[in-house]
Amino acid sequence: MTDRLRIAVLGASGYTGADLVRLALTHPRVEITALVANAKAGQAMQAIWPHFAPYRALPTLVQADDVDWSGIDAVFGCLPHATSAELLSKIEGPRIIDLSADFRLKDAATYADWYGGAHPAPELLPQAVYGLTEFARAALPAASVVACPGCYPTAVLLALLPLVEAGAIAADRITVNALSGVSGSGRGLKEANLFAEVAEAVHPYGIGHHRHMPEMEQELALRAGRPVTISFTPHLVPMNRGELVTCVVELAGGLAEARTALATRYADEPFVHLLPEGVAPATRMVRGSNNTVINIFADRVPGRALVIAAIDNLVKGSSGQAIQNMNVAFGLPETLGLEAAPLFP
Amino acid sequence: MTDRLRIAVLGASGYTGADLVRLALTHPRVEITALVANAKAGQAMQAIWPHFAPYRALPTLVQADDVDWSGIDAVFGCLPHATSAELLSKIEGPRIIDLSADFRLKDAATYADWYGGAHPAPELLPQAVYGLTEFARAALPAASVVACPGCYPTAVLLALLPLVEAGAIAADRITVNALSGVSGSGRGLKEANLFAEVAEAVHPYGIGHHRHMPEMEQELALRAGRPVTISFTPHLVPMNRGELVTCVVELAGGLAEARTALATRYADEPFVHLLPEGVAPATRMVRGSNNTVINIFADRVPGRALVIAAIDNLVKGSSGQAIQNMNVAFGLPETLGLEAAPLFP
Amino acid sequence: MTDRLRIAVLGASGYTGADLVRLALTHPRVEITALVANAKAGQAMQAIWPHFAPYRALPTLVQADDVDWSGIDAVFGCLPHATSAELLSKIEGPRIIDLSADFRLKDAATYADWYGGAHPAPELLPQAVYGLTEFARAALPAASVVACPGCYPTAVLLALLPLVEAGAIAADRITVNALSGVSGSGRGLKEANLFAEVAEAVHPYGIGHHRHMPEMEQELALRAGRPVTISFTPHLVPMNRGELVTCVVELAGGLAEARTALATRYADEPFVHLLPEGVAPATRMVRGSNNTVINIFADRVPGRALVIAAIDNLVKGSSGQAIQNMNVAFGLPETLGLEAAPLFP
Amino acid sequence: MTDRLRIAVLGASGYTGADLVRLALTHPRVEITALVANAKAGQAMQAIWPHFAPYRALPTLVQADDVDWSGIDAVFGCLPHATSAELLSKIEGPRIIDLSADFRLKDAATYADWYGGAHPAPELLPQAVYGLTEFARAALPAASVVACPGCYPTAVLLALLPLVEAGAIAADRITVNALSGVSGSGRGLKEANLFAEVAEAVHPYGIGHHRHMPEMEQELALRAGRPVTISFTPHLVPMNRGELVTCVVELAGGLAEARTALATRYADEPFVHLLPEGVAPATRMVRGSNNTVINIFADRVPGRALVIAAIDNLVKGSSGQAIQNMNVAFGLPETLGLEAAPLFP
Repeated sequence: MTDRLRIAVLGASGYTGADLVRLALTHPRVEITALVANAKAGQAMQAIWPHFAPYRALPTLVQADDVDWSGIDAVFGCLPHATSAELLSKIEGPRIIDLSADFRLKDAATYADWYGGAHPAPELLPQAVYGLTEFARAALPAASVVACPGCYPTAVLLALLPLVEAGAIAADRITVNALSGVSGSGRGLKEANLFAEVAEAVHPYGIGHHRHMPEMEQELALRAGRPVTISFTPHLVPMNRGELVTCVVELAGGLAEARTALATRYADEPFVHLLPEGVAPATRMVRGSNNTVINIFADRVPGRALVIAAIDNLVKGSSGQAIQNMNVAFGLPETLGLEAAPLFP
Repeated sequence: MTDRLRIAVLGASGYTGADLVRLALTHPRVEITALVANAKAGQAMQAIWPHFAPYRALPTLVQADDVDWSGIDAVFGCLPHATSAELLSKIEGPRIIDLSADFRLKDAATYADWYGGAHPAPELLPQAVYGLTEFARAALPAASVVACPGCYPTAVLLALLPLVEAGAIAADRITVNALSGVSGSGRGLKEANLFAEVAEAVHPYGIGHHRHMPEMEQELALRAGRPVTISFTPHLVPMNRGELVTCVVELAGGLAEARTALATRYADEPFVHLLPEGVAPATRMVRGSNNTVINIFADRVPGRALVIAAIDNLVKGSSGQAIQNMNVAFGLPETLGLEAAPLFP
Repeated sequence: MTDRLRIAVLGASGYTGADLVRLALTHPRVEITALVANAKAGQAMQAIWPHFAPYRALPTLVQADDVDWSGIDAVFGCLPHATSAELLSKIEGPRIIDLSADFRLKDAATYADWYGGAHPAPELLPQAVYGLTEFARAALPAASVVACPGCYPTAVLLALLPLVEAGAIAADRITVNALSGVSGSGRGLKEANLFAEVAEAVHPYGIGHHRHMPEMEQELALRAGRPVTISFTPHLVPMNRGELVTCVVELAGGLAEARTALATRYADEPFVHLLPEGVAPATRMVRGSNNTVINIFADRVPGRALVIAAIDNLVKGSSGQAIQNMNVAFGLPETLGLEAAPLFP
Repeated sequence: MTDRLRIAVLGASGYTGADLVRLALTHPRVEITALVANAKAGQAMQAIWPHFAPYRALPTLVQADDVDWSGIDAVFGCLPHATSAELLSKIEGPRIIDLSADFRLKDAATYADWYGGAHPAPELLPQAVYGLTEFARAALPAASVVACPGCYPTAVLLALLPLVEAGAIAADRITVNALSGVSGSGRGLKEANLFAEVAEAVHPYGIGHHRHMPEMEQELALRAGRPVTISFTPHLVPMNRGELVTCVVELAGGLAEARTALATRYADEPFVHLLPEGVAPATRMVRGSNNTVINIFADRVPGRALVIAAIDNLVKGSSGQAIQNMNVAFGLPETLGLEAAPLFP
């Protein structure tokens, strides 16, 4: 086992934590050393997650204080925001790969505005690398803290960053409509997440003020070289997994140049795939995998284009990208443990 | 039975036709006199629609040629476009309430462009009233042909027409994202409509060229007094019924004025309801009913607003509105037969 | 309004209560006088149930103590067991139509065994009529307490009672497999009812000890004239509404006699429909309606038959049957307010 | 690539074929050499299966006649019955692993009775090994034809064979209720498989005469030493994947002995897992994996027990078990390529 990275998962009782464990179980260079869930400490993973019933070697859940962090190479934060930074800031030793929102925004004041309170560990912000892997490879190997992007920002930024970088679209006047499966809102007990409320139905939420907005704007502004404000409206769709973003953008030049910018940027990417012309991205193309599918289309309004991307919100939008970041950060092959093809149907 | 309208349904073997029959069955002033489905003529409705098993009095399916049209007051066209106009144009006697696309566009040339062929009955177009009931009441009583709006136009126009009429928003620069259940695409055998393709998944379709575009543009332009082009992207959602449209618009004045325009216009409407501030429209609010729920929200981008509406695509978006039009056209109380409250959960 | 029954609903904040309100809203002889939900008292129904947004005349939620019961003709108990009997036993005046389990079992000791505590109001048990409407019509007009059957017993007993009464099957050796939508388990916050736990999945529950067992056995035994014990296994299916029971029975005589027993018994029933030979009952045949569809089939094992029934668990299995019982109890036409045809798709 | 088995897939345009390709793509000892789909020959897999868009190395679809079979080690038959045997019987060289029903029944006359026609290749029947892997390991290495069990028989036989072998239950008087996702009925265009027909609904099918019956009876009889007839009723559930069987059996001795029989038999099985006492099997425990979960419970009727098992119908019930059989047949580690943990949620 000496050639395996020893990992700990904080928040192993949530969907994100569980999906990280799912992927880690078959990763050939990972050893799951500690599973932390303070409120469930002492229980077996099988008691909480019956799909892990046959995986008897999984460690029992423990409290964070009971982990010997000196033996851990990487700790994955799968906790709600604020809780995550507070807990992670006390851990010394392992490299931090955080899946919460806590280390995504460079500016603690913006964080306070959007997340309703002072940042719990502002001293770590300067070290944090925004881990949209395809745009962060150079910085990851030296990063002590990796902030994995939110699920919506992952899809939107993969769709738009190459276009902004190439000057193919206007960075402002971006309108994003987004659709997400329900797993993104976690395993907490909320009436809005009950089956009978969600099934056979659809509705928007976070209208005009969703917390993924400042994160998208930060990264777009970075490439645009000026502040960016976007329209973004997410909707809840009756499915477990999957996320699709439909971005209406104003072209700076022609559609062909924009298409070329995407094709060039992603030609060699293992997990981002520009579809053939005319093929609509669909969440069923990526379910259960770390893949992203993207396409660009002419809009009926002259000068506008539609850029559409689909991911699995729990994999590329969360745990899969976290593993991908770990691979890059530790010098492993980037696709290791993430090769599974999508599950369709 | 002499105080009952005698109706015929063309296309009783499709979802739209079946939902019209469902509503007509309990309408106190309607008698279902003929059910037409050429390919299924001779069969009982129960053989095709087992949910009608207990309704033994329903007429057997017949061919259009076998109906005595002189005894029919109103004929509902629930057929695909082109087939509908072709068949209806040969029928004399009953008033026509068509649910297909054939009589919605005023201009036969636009029809030919979007529907791939010459209009089968252009002579009827001048008589056709565009039957968005709330905006067509004055014209309906004298109409010999009522063209029921498409499902998406119904939702979009109910959301936007009062704002355009009041000058509260710019009629151009409208971006609509739409979500629809699967029943809207009919009972025909298409791989894309199989359960395993649709469930646990979402995708856009008709990108940049959906046939409901010219219809929405026609009606918006009529009120704006100038040509209008819109961005419109529909998505297929894994649910049977329901439709939600999210319209991003540029405000001409303030949000409050826009809200007032909606509130004023719909204060006394039985089937259109402006929700309290901050409440997000959801398809579960209207399932199975003829109701529409609408709301307006500030967008994060200054000067923009989000206008969101939800309907049941088969009821207000199709068969329910057709009944509503019949009620108005024949001088019956507008809500007759349409009072059922939404089915939730 | 003097020709309307004045009703109160206890537990208007649950799915069952809401569905009763939905049906009562369009019942021509009902006036909804009081809506009780102790924990939500003071709120508008619209705040809890957005699908009632347009129904502004609905009374505000109140506490049970604040209702003037002297003006109420019928009170519907839509509360959890024990709570229901406790509250109802203090109310004087209106006739009680209870949808909980509290008045279904004749024997308080059996109740205590299965429901984990002494019966809160054993003095009311002798007056209670078991309200499987089709088998209770004679007793309902004089009943001061009507105990509406559980959803599973409704389907199973409608399928089997005519066969037991006719001696067409053995009353013992009954094996029932049942499938139910999720609304049956209520709006309470339970992890097991979250969308992500239920969707794209199925599992059995209450294995060997579901609380609807003694109720089915009581009614079967009553007709069989001897004690009956059955096998019964319910499963949770990813749908909102609907219930299907598949009963494997041993025939006493031939299949034809058994079929005749069902056909004869239900020939004139408005809400129970024996399907044509060979047609499989399906929940989509009854969704949203008070209908029951039943059929009987030869099993591959000689001497056995399959009796299969489908209902909407919230309508015929709960609120619809309660209204049906009210109609009979108060001498109204039995189908009043329940005529809506099933919602398919 | 010399250490890789070269495989061909007949019927790569169906769900089963696609899922076999999905698994083979990451199998470290397999090379996908030929993909056959006569009606789609000449097309890329990506054109038919967009979830394979990024897998550009997949061979183009060809006709069976165009394959050089001498270079193929194993051919997987993923075709409908009859078509499969007809095509496979003409192929010389590779070992046959058939997923259709054609080689499951030992007796050609029984096949003719149930499948509506003479067996297309009765000469191959004697060589065929019934490939329920856990009960076929000894025979697989020498088998020229492996008949993979049907999905229902896989689940039912894994649940019951150890109990019959141990004499813990009566082999007759078995009643099975089964639930399956929709993918099991294939990608063919059938009205019954449309989303709007299946979603939010459930119904039984093949009542009293499902084709998996003789297959289960054959294998049960083999262990019981006498003919066996069972009751078996499958139901269609609105989910893509997953199968759950609930078997009501008569115990020969005590429940504890029966439980021990299962525990002993499966103690070292990688893909069959007896759950802890009281934990109900659920399809969400196995989704997307080759795992089986089983449990046994006391029934309320004395002397009866419930044995319940869940699998993914496309994996352990079809393509996964086929790969498992290939692994054993060719002397590879049995779990190779099948290690992925279940996808939940």
